[in-house]
This record gives sequence, structure tokens and C-alpha cells, in this order.
Amino acid sequence: MAEDRPLRILGIDPGSRIMGIAVIDYAKNRAQCLFHDQVHFTAGAPLPERLGQIYKNVKKVATQYGPHEVAIEQAFMHKHVQAAMTLGHARGAAMTAVVSAGIPIFEYAPRLIKKAIVGYGAAEKNQVQSMIKLLFNLSELPSADAADALAVALCHAHMRQCNVRA
Amino acid sequence: MAEDRPLRILGIDPGSRIMGIAVIDYAKNRAQCLFHDQVHFTAGAPLPERLGQIYKNVKKVATQYGPHEVAIEQAFMHKHVQAAMTLGHARGAAMTAVVSAGIPIFEYAPRLIKKAIVGYGAAEKNQVQSMIKLLFNLSELPSADAADALAVALCHAHMRQCNVRA
Repeated sequence: MAEDRPLRILGIDPGSRIMGIAVIDYAKNRAQCLFHDQVHFTAGAPLPERLGQIYKNVKKVATQYGPHEVAIEQAFMHKHVQAAMTLGHARGAAMTAVVSAGIPIFEYAPRLIKKAIVGYGAAEKNQVQSMIKLLFNLSELPSADAADALAVALCHAHMRQCNVRA
Repeated sequence: MAEDRPLRILGIDPGSRIMGIAVIDYAKNRAQCLFHDQVHFTAGAPLPERLGQIYKNVKKVATQYGPHEVAIEQAFMHKHVQAAMTLGHARGAAMTAVVSAGIPIFEYAPRLIKKAIVGYGAAEKNQVQSMIKLLFNLSELPSADAADALAVALCHAHMRQCNVRA
């Protein structure tokens, strides 16, 4: 990666009811937020319909911004099998939208993301939101899910940076 | 549905390592197998790559045969959260390939499928294979996963038939 050419990263925090999605540009140690959103899916809608909504939303943002790479939160390990299965479906739909467009995906554990952004892995949601607002110089506090999407994108940018320097 | 116009059904038995996929035509109480296969995904490949393979395979068969409807096995409830999550991703990818093509999906529980095909819900895999060979007049015993894909498609055809007559 040339240092002066921005790396465009799509960040996704996938869920079956709400999905955080964001796009950043990263170059010369500087990150810029191009887009962030928290998408709500139709409550009570059948699973295929919600998967279709996830696919459509990810595809739309990917087409509009043309990211080089995608960063996604690794699945949080639910205690309940049913919840894990439902989250698996949602992540599967989001990742399928990305791989079907031929964009490389990188996964990061929630603890690693928090450590990269806030400084420690057990950070609370509002700490991530505040730090993301500060780092991207946003005028308002982003929603929790949009902040998570920006956080995973920025975490990926930092990892990339380390790789380049290594 | 007009009785004399065949209903073309794509049946899917999704898994993260092996997927059963089949296409049938159903009209006037007669079912015909047009295609059945057991697709193996690259062992040890990263999850995004396997999801891409699932998407590509489902999309290819759907494009080639133009099914009116898709029938898919409901998720078997794993005891282990990690296994449930992985299966969820695979089902999510298969379902996303279908919904992104605008084809309606119907889900059926494994017990219901076995009951519809073999006569009782606790039937063994080889019983499903033998009955599917007989019902579709196949020259050879289909693989277990291809038989499951044909079984869910036929189960859907029977359900459709009942609805038309009701």
C-alpha cells in the first residue's frame, strides 16, 4: 500500500435487528469518516426478508463507496444456541454481500477492537462512542452500532499500518 | 398454481463443509428430479471463502434452472454454540444467494421432511436415501446430502399440493 494513497475501508458491526455500517479513508496516519449509519431491520419480519435487507444495505454502501477492504467484528459468543444461530445468519448475509462483490474481508475480535480504540479490551459502549467522536472529529456522538462499525474499520487501518511498517 | 404447469423447486440442505442441492419439477402429483449434487467446500479454507463458494454454487444452479420457489432445511439445533454459529453463517450465505435473486424461500424442520418422505420423523439417513431413489426413480442411490436436498424439495411440493387442495 502506498502511504499517500488512502486505503478505503468499509466497517461492519452485523446484527439481525440492527447493523452498524461505516466507510473511512485512511492515509498518513489520518483517518476520515466518509459515512456512518445504524440500519434497523423490520422487527418481526421473517428471517429471509431480514437477510435480504442486510445484503441489500451492505451491497448499496459497497457499490457507492468502492472500499478496498472490509473489516467486520468477529462474532460475540452467545450463551444461547438460538441467538448464536441467528447472529450467524446475519453475519453470513453481510459477509456474502462482501465476498460476492470480490472485496477482501478481515475479522477482528471485539476485545481487540476496543483495545485498539479506547486502550483496553473491556471498554463500555459509551466509551467507544466518545472516543470515535473524538478520533474522527464528528460533530455529534454516533449511535452505538455506527461507532462499532467505525471502530472496526479504524482497528483494521491500524493493523494495516503496523503491517506496512513491520 | 395451475395443476398442469410444473412447479420448479430448488431444494437446499446447507452446511459449512458440504451442501446438498437439487432441483425438481412437480406437477399432477408427479415429481421429477432435474439435478442433484453434493458440493464439498475447501476444507480448512477461511470462512469468507467458504461463504463465497456457497453463494456461487447456489446462484449458479438457481440461474441455470430458474426455480419458482426454494425449500431449505430448518437449522438442526446444535448443542455447541460454535457449531450453531458456523451453521448459521452457511445457511445465511445460501439464503442470501436466494433472496438476492428474488426467489421465495420456505423452511421445513428435519423431522417434518422425514415424516413427509419416509413416513416417520426419526428416520435414518439411509432410509431417506433409499426412499428418494425410489420416489424419483433414480438409477443410483444419491449421496446423503443430495438426498436431503431432494427430500426438502419434495416435502415442499407436497405442502404446496395440500394448500392447493385445501
